[in-house]
Amino acid sequence: MTSNDDVNRDLVESLLTGPAYHKWLGLELLDAKPGQVVIGMAGRPEFCGNTDGTYIHGGLLATLADIAADFALVTQVGIGLPTIDLRMDYLRPAKPGDYLRAVGTVVRRGRTLGVADALVANGDGVKLAVGRGLYSTATP
Amino acid sequence: MTSNDDVNRDLVESLLTGPAYHKWLGLELLDAKPGQVVIGMAGRPEFCGNTDGTYIHGGLLATLADIAADFALVTQVGIGLPTIDLRMDYLRPAKPGDYLRAVGTVVRRGRTLGVADALVANGDGVKLAVGRGLYSTATP
Amino acid sequence: MTSNDDVNRDLVESLLTGPAYHKWLGLELLDAKPGQVVIGMAGRPEFCGNTDGTYIHGGLLATLADIAADFALVTQVGIGLPTIDLRMDYLRPAKPGDYLRAVGTVVRRGRTLGVADALVANGDGVKLAVGRGLYSTATP
Amino acid sequence: MTSNDDVNRDLVESLLTGPAYHKWLGLELLDAKPGQVVIGMAGRPEFCGNTDGTYIHGGLLATLADIAADFALVTQVGIGLPTIDLRMDYLRPAKPGDYLRAVGTVVRRGRTLGVADALVANGDGVKLAVGRGLYSTATP
Repeated sequence: MTSNDDVNRDLVESLLTGPAYHKWLGLELLDAKPGQVVIGMAGRPEFCGNTDGTYIHGGLLATLADIAADFALVTQVGIGLPTIDLRMDYLRPAKPGDYLRAVGTVVRRGRTLGVADALVANGDGVKLAVGRGLYSTATP
Repeated sequence: MTSNDDVNRDLVESLLTGPAYHKWLGLELLDAKPGQVVIGMAGRPEFCGNTDGTYIHGGLLATLADIAADFALVTQVGIGLPTIDLRMDYLRPAKPGDYLRAVGTVVRRGRTLGVADALVANGDGVKLAVGRGLYSTATP
Repeated sequence: MTSNDDVNRDLVESLLTGPAYHKWLGLELLDAKPGQVVIGMAGRPEFCGNTDGTYIHGGLLATLADIAADFALVTQVGIGLPTIDLRMDYLRPAKPGDYLRAVGTVVRRGRTLGVADALVANGDGVKLAVGRGLYSTATP
Repeated sequence: MTSNDDVNRDLVESLLTGPAYHKWLGLELLDAKPGQVVIGMAGRPEFCGNTDGTYIHGGLLATLADIAADFALVTQVGIGLPTIDLRMDYLRPAKPGDYLRAVGTVVRRGRTLGVADALVANGDGVKLAVGRGLYSTATP
């Protein structure tokens, strides 16, 4: 774990690891700096999207990418942010046993809307998927 | 359950309910006809995307929409089809306790590529999300 | 032209036909009702996207779809609405000489954001492209 | 203009500047290297998307982004490539008088499909829009 002086890492981590579905996914905050996070997720057998169990369901890559993009903005806004829309492009299959790393990066943070990108790669650094989402950045 | 004379419903159902992640999600094939399916999923507490447990993670709506759009094409192609890309638009939050229904509809089935839409609604028929995906329809 | 009692058609038409680029495109408001418009555009030779001049540039279909989806919301909001994001799926090539018709339909109109769909077809009713956009629906 | 030893620049330029619509847009190939291009376009008054003539139509940014992403792949494939789908995110308005620069970058080139990104900025380097497209990379 790196130190991230400009980000309230405890807050980001508690938002990341608190939700029930995030717990089931086993998400880990690997790094956080202003406008960028790295989130890890181990590819487990129960994540498989085909009967043969040879690849991880794309919905889980979408979830991981969405969370990474979202949390890139969370580092700047400091609260959980609703996803408005998301596009995923699948480049190569993820396999059970892969340790997935998703880098989320802010493209633009506006007052009410933010755009962020995510890149999902496996442990060998092979790009598996890219995502781009729009998030509500309005604060109460 | 309706009878669906032109669709090999047993095949579609086995592709839907076989994969480990689909089992965990608890997916049900509610209807299938050529070019269209309806898939149900109960919104469980472990699906929640916030610490307070008040809404279902958007990644699960994306997963459900992706599967519904994909299986709309599966009714026509007869094999599992890889997702190439997906766009999700979130309209309203899904709540734990909601029984989600996703209608998947083919927009165009080509020889190597297919486009399909999904509409996710709750038990009251309120639209929660729409998705549109591109799928590989090439057969071996 | 149909009568459209619930839509201020003059306003919609002036917003559609006033902008310089819309004039160059030759857009026509074929129909307007609350939450839906039909916009026509003749496919001219100068619209071609390849040197052989055999098909119309996809960017023009994106433009037409964006405008149709946007104006579906304009019928409800009554002012010009900025596009936040757009996804286009190209189904079949448009040809010079085609008269293109784009049907724009509101998916959801919210207080600050709206989602709308567009379907672009040729004069034979063949679907050429589908688009889905997010628009700012906030009013001053 | 840079020299681009590994790209057939004459071919790329002829594909870029040959089509009728590209001519009308006034596209310029500012740079080309394997997997990346920079394309310029002057924002003219006839590009405006509102009656007041204060901003450039988003459809033109989509067109420019689509072309930049497409031509990033063209540098690798060597032929014109059909767009399959495209997502645009608009960040800030483009103004008439802006000289727009779009950087297109390959995300993944596959045998039949390729993903590429585009970033559109003005002359001050301010990001105006990002796009991501899927292209057919199959060769005859």
